[in-house]
Amino acid sequence: MPKIKLLLAYDGTKYGGWQIQPNTVTIQEVLQEQLKIILRAETAVTGAGRTDAGVHALGQVAHFSTALDVDLFKLKASLNGLLPHDIRVKNVECVPEHFHARYSACNKIYQYHLHLAPVLDPFTSLYRWQVGEIDQDALRQAADHLLGTHDFTSFANEPGSGAAAKNPIRSIKRIELIPQREGLILEFEGASFLYKMVRNMTGTLIETARGKRPADQILDILHAKDRRKAGRAAPAKGLFLVRVDYPQDLSERKSG
Amino acid sequence: MPKIKLLLAYDGTKYGGWQIQPNTVTIQEVLQEQLKIILRAETAVTGAGRTDAGVHALGQVAHFSTALDVDLFKLKASLNGLLPHDIRVKNVECVPEHFHARYSACNKIYQYHLHLAPVLDPFTSLYRWQVGEIDQDALRQAADHLLGTHDFTSFANEPGSGAAAKNPIRSIKRIELIPQREGLILEFEGASFLYKMVRNMTGTLIETARGKRPADQILDILHAKDRRKAGRAAPAKGLFLVRVDYPQDLSERKSG
Repeated sequence: MPKIKLLLAYDGTKYGGWQIQPNTVTIQEVLQEQLKIILRAETAVTGAGRTDAGVHALGQVAHFSTALDVDLFKLKASLNGLLPHDIRVKNVECVPEHFHARYSACNKIYQYHLHLAPVLDPFTSLYRWQVGEIDQDALRQAADHLLGTHDFTSFANEPGSGAAAKNPIRSIKRIELIPQREGLILEFEGASFLYKMVRNMTGTLIETARGKRPADQILDILHAKDRRKAGRAAPAKGLFLVRVDYPQDLSERKSG
Repeated sequence: MPKIKLLLAYDGTKYGGWQIQPNTVTIQEVLQEQLKIILRAETAVTGAGRTDAGVHALGQVAHFSTALDVDLFKLKASLNGLLPHDIRVKNVECVPEHFHARYSACNKIYQYHLHLAPVLDPFTSLYRWQVGEIDQDALRQAADHLLGTHDFTSFANEPGSGAAAKNPIRSIKRIELIPQREGLILEFEGASFLYKMVRNMTGTLIETARGKRPADQILDILHAKDRRKAGRAAPAKGLFLVRVDYPQDLSERKSG
């Protein structure tokens, strides 16, 4: 049975996140509805990461299986024709049977977008957290303390399902500060992240960059393994899932 | 009577353009409504350029006079508090009595934003014209023919009011191609532009970049002085009024 990998971009503003749940419209739900129409069968879609309500994606990955021998180019065109404009399919490809959007992922990049000017920007107000003037040297110093392998319990929330990650050890390969017009992007790269970890790290980094915490307090927070020691989560609207990488042998066979 | 200059950014998506007119909400109207509340008097606002329905601004300029001795910092805060998020006041300053947002302007910059990828981007679909793959060398060649001083009759529409510009001679100082992620910005600079001139030039340049016209046909179109010879106007949603410049002696006295 052919297995299909989708590369997706979406504006999360109007959605209750990726995962299907009651009383809100989700990305997964909208995708499954349209695939049902196109493939004429209930089709379960699995995503690489469960982005929260209001979180955006430039490169979310999802997979599904279908009994049909689909034309990938037509599938992409049909999906983009049926989906609302705030969800776009950027690529469609055939992958090996053992590919899994979530479990096969070996690397992820998230960006957190900050607005540094005193006045909101009408074009980015839905996509940036307005923090005003901050000390970028302090931010850089604090971010450096998060790099490498740590127990990130202090920066993780329990997911709503109650099923906390069994292993809170994660490795952050890279935190880059990318200047923007009146803004700043924090780019995080790692094999995987705990629930709400990027937003919790960002919230705490900004408290440091506002002079509310010394940069080396990050080490104390990590050692405490206590969520209450870290700062508040940064708002969902500034977070983007940018890219999910997979091992070479799972990459595209043919694409549309 | 103090004269105040406003620097404005707005997302034009939901508005019927700058200028007040029946049966649609306009930027000028919304501004005047809020100024009436703040200044407790009917206040006429004059803009540097009458952006059309759906056209955006990163740096529109407007002026008004008031009998009150206003605190500029408070005025800016009050306006941003009362205005919808898609209209922002970026700066407020006091200007000499003879300042006029439209007649004193000596230089303008417009940008036209293009999307070059086959799939729409959920974050820029309201702010870019999707043209797909184009020949950027042909675009550059054609744009070069528009530089300098010409009779731009072929690229001007008659404004709705019927009051066509008496003098169709304009000078374009600069047309720059600025690469973007999956996109391209065409940046136009000149002392002033005729009605719909930037959108008409862009539409015609894109026909050239798609191979539908040879680049040097631009010269024939200019010489013809006939609107029907040029291409269709590019859609409003890709156009941004970026900056309006004024002579040094009219610039800020104090600002908030």
